[in-house]
Amino acid sequence: MREFTWSATEKRAARAAFDLALARELKATRQEAEAILRNSSDDRVIWRLHDYLDEKRVEIDQKYDYRYSVLMSVFPRLVSEGWLKLDELVAIGAEKVDVINKLMSLREY
Amino acid sequence: MREFTWSATEKRAARAAFDLALARELKATRQEAEAILRNSSDDRVIWRLHDYLDEKRVEIDQKYDYRYSVLMSVFPRLVSEGWLKLDELVAIGAEKVDVINKLMSLREY
Repeated sequence: MREFTWSATEKRAARAAFDLALARELKATRQEAEAILRNSSDDRVIWRLHDYLDEKRVEIDQKYDYRYSVLMSVFPRLVSEGWLKLDELVAIGAEKVDVINKLMSLREY
Repeated sequence: MREFTWSATEKRAARAAFDLALARELKATRQEAEAILRNSSDDRVIWRLHDYLDEKRVEIDQKYDYRYSVLMSVFPRLVSEGWLKLDELVAIGAEKVDVINKLMSLREY
């Protein structure tokens, strides 16, 4: 992956978009946890809930890596998984958005 | 711990009491999980829920050990923690209930 430059404004925009995606995925995870409990009358469902949260914790810890050296791999994944829209990234710079778009179409992230 | 003899009837009673305690603790764990979610509007509460279920899984796995060689240590703990009442154990044999009662008063379990 080539290196990109980030102005102070672009860094703030990147951080805001990153935090927005994380907040959305945390909300969705919570809603799924609530649904798992709601949809089963068997109390052993707590172990299925535990397994689900185990997996999501590993996945989220691994996915949300805010280092500028990897961010241009993180954003295509967040967009392709639906946690961000491409137009929510415009303030990180047109060239970067263009690259993200291309990486998404190539599924290279 | 001395060895105890278990008749077929006493074994069935022990299994039923053991399963009853486990069912109660699973229900209480589920209710606590639901309360953790209900009582926080911060979606990061899912990680607190995950930590809680982590601990309960280890605790329950370790506590509910149905080997006759250890059952006379398991029952005093289940009674002292409130998952069983002593009179729910009468069918395992009067002598054993007496020992459980003594172990509880000595906190030796």
